[in-house]
Amino acid sequence: MARSARRPDDAAEQDLAAVAIANDAAERVRGTTSPNPPVGAVILDTDGLIAGVGATSPVGGPHAEIMALGVAGERARGGTAVVTLEPCNHTGRTGPCTEALVEAGVARVVYAVDDPNPQAAGGAHALRAAGVEVQGGVGADLVERTTLRAWLHRQSVGRAHVTWKFAASLDGRSAAADGTSQWITGPEARALVHAQRARLDAIVVGTGTVLADDPWLTAREPDGSLAARQPLRVVVGEREIPASSRVLDDAAETLILRTRDPHDVIAALADRPDVLLEGGPHLAGAFLEAGLIDRVQAFLSPVLLGAGAAAVEDAGVGTIAEALRFTRESVEAVGPDLLLTLVPNGA
Amino acid sequence: MARSARRPDDAAEQDLAAVAIANDAAERVRGTTSPNPPVGAVILDTDGLIAGVGATSPVGGPHAEIMALGVAGERARGGTAVVTLEPCNHTGRTGPCTEALVEAGVARVVYAVDDPNPQAAGGAHALRAAGVEVQGGVGADLVERTTLRAWLHRQSVGRAHVTWKFAASLDGRSAAADGTSQWITGPEARALVHAQRARLDAIVVGTGTVLADDPWLTAREPDGSLAARQPLRVVVGEREIPASSRVLDDAAETLILRTRDPHDVIAALADRPDVLLEGGPHLAGAFLEAGLIDRVQAFLSPVLLGAGAAAVEDAGVGTIAEALRFTRESVEAVGPDLLLTLVPNGA
Repeated sequence: MARSARRPDDAAEQDLAAVAIANDAAERVRGTTSPNPPVGAVILDTDGLIAGVGATSPVGGPHAEIMALGVAGERARGGTAVVTLEPCNHTGRTGPCTEALVEAGVARVVYAVDDPNPQAAGGAHALRAAGVEVQGGVGADLVERTTLRAWLHRQSVGRAHVTWKFAASLDGRSAAADGTSQWITGPEARALVHAQRARLDAIVVGTGTVLADDPWLTAREPDGSLAARQPLRVVVGEREIPASSRVLDDAAETLILRTRDPHDVIAALADRPDVLLEGGPHLAGAFLEAGLIDRVQAFLSPVLLGAGAAAVEDAGVGTIAEALRFTRESVEAVGPDLLLTLVPNGA
Repeated sequence: MARSARRPDDAAEQDLAAVAIANDAAERVRGTTSPNPPVGAVILDTDGLIAGVGATSPVGGPHAEIMALGVAGERARGGTAVVTLEPCNHTGRTGPCTEALVEAGVARVVYAVDDPNPQAAGGAHALRAAGVEVQGGVGADLVERTTLRAWLHRQSVGRAHVTWKFAASLDGRSAAADGTSQWITGPEARALVHAQRARLDAIVVGTGTVLADDPWLTAREPDGSLAARQPLRVVVGEREIPASSRVLDDAAETLILRTRDPHDVIAALADRPDVLLEGGPHLAGAFLEAGLIDRVQAFLSPVLLGAGAAAVEDAGVGTIAEALRFTRESVEAVGPDLLLTLVPNGA
């Protein structure tokens, strides 16, 4: 076998690289697979070459493993299947992936994340019982932080994963003294925001933001056209918004929630695991105070304003000892701006 | 000769590495050499080995080249002198460094930055006339951004170089709702601030900061003891401060300027090239509006407050088109915090 000639380090690196490819495949279907998780799979042949790549189909369609096996065909025999999630062992709308992998003659299965769903779990055990070599936990960090983040969060916490995104000047302002805010961040940051929107389940804003900025809240392609998939638009608050508001047009679905309680909002979005909160400052403060922010994405622009609305107000912090503290997950340059990603301490 | 056997790339890399060592030597004397620039020098022997390192002495003492030649002794003969600034060619309180280099038998001189001072310049020409191989501009970027930054700024602009340092939460607050601010940033950031203070010429705060926080504004060692060298403490504003203010003790000199005009402040600090402005928000706003900030050091803490004083107020910006825009020079992690260094656009 070709694998036995490789040094263990090389084999581990190749497994990680294959998980990253499978994760990229999963990223391309993220947002389209609910209630199933967005999973990616890669089939390597006996020479370690990629024979097939696949990702989860919309609900009722084949899982990632089946898609990848379909591409690989006979090249799967004696090869390795690399999957971002433990292959399922149960018959739901589709048959168990474990059976399909055994039938295809796969000799080894590598996966990233154990399936936390008791119904679907047991895949690793079933594969081993069928004589397949199984290795779990490979590249789990990457997958848990990216493609399976929201789905795993809902599995473990029982509610949607909420990302609060804001754009601000270095002095924390989201608008200038006269309310103008277009544009604090550069075109690169705005393009990234649109690319992310197409993969979300819902975007939440307050009525104040609708009244002040009349945002469209759609995902757009770089040329300005609407993306094929649009997240649910959610407007939260007790104030009326004009019927002419752009958020009420038919470019995407819109949900009006006549509440200011973040818990009510999350409850209303129970079937939407990946939620983006876009503000404004008081709604963000209420979510922060309620402990309902699971991730912060701060786009910080190299700009100073010295006046104007703050990015967040009324988060329930009276003194420095009560400050809401976060851990930096990453920092990246996006054109002239910085994107800081943070998670709450203790989360 | 050993050098001729090296490939040109290797030689260029070794020159750059030697400039970095000379720059480190200059950094250790930064703040002690005024009105002379803090310069570093390295002597390499004919094998390319370091024979001596030196830096500028306090005014009236030997320049960096002389210090390094003193260590190298006879090993300088036929070797290379690497200096962060073009060697001087004039007799001031000390003799010309060019003469000393020629007398020591140095065969080659590499330097980073051309001397902009018409009195001292001409060193490269004089060395070449004496048969020395000379190469200028090596590692100039590094030296211009670090050790010679403030001195070069004063040479070209005719006034002190002003760095505005602030520490803020991600939402741009320098204090919580009740005014508490100890500590927004972590111990690593505070240690860095103290290490920087010892090399500054002056630290400027407003009377408001003195009244609110009663800061000491001294440079301290990691153990809390006073650093050997202390920058001038400068208190700016028209309000009275109590005689018991810590900034008025004898740990360092203090200058009280009864003005709120940033131009007056800079004029009063004409013999202090490297000035740090520490706030508060209104003084920072006045300096920003006056265009007197040459560099921003923003310590951003992974914290949200949602209320409390902003890092900057009243910078003269009314609408987004007037935003003060900067270019990121660097971003680095300092413990849990980020240090963003920025320079004004067009500067």
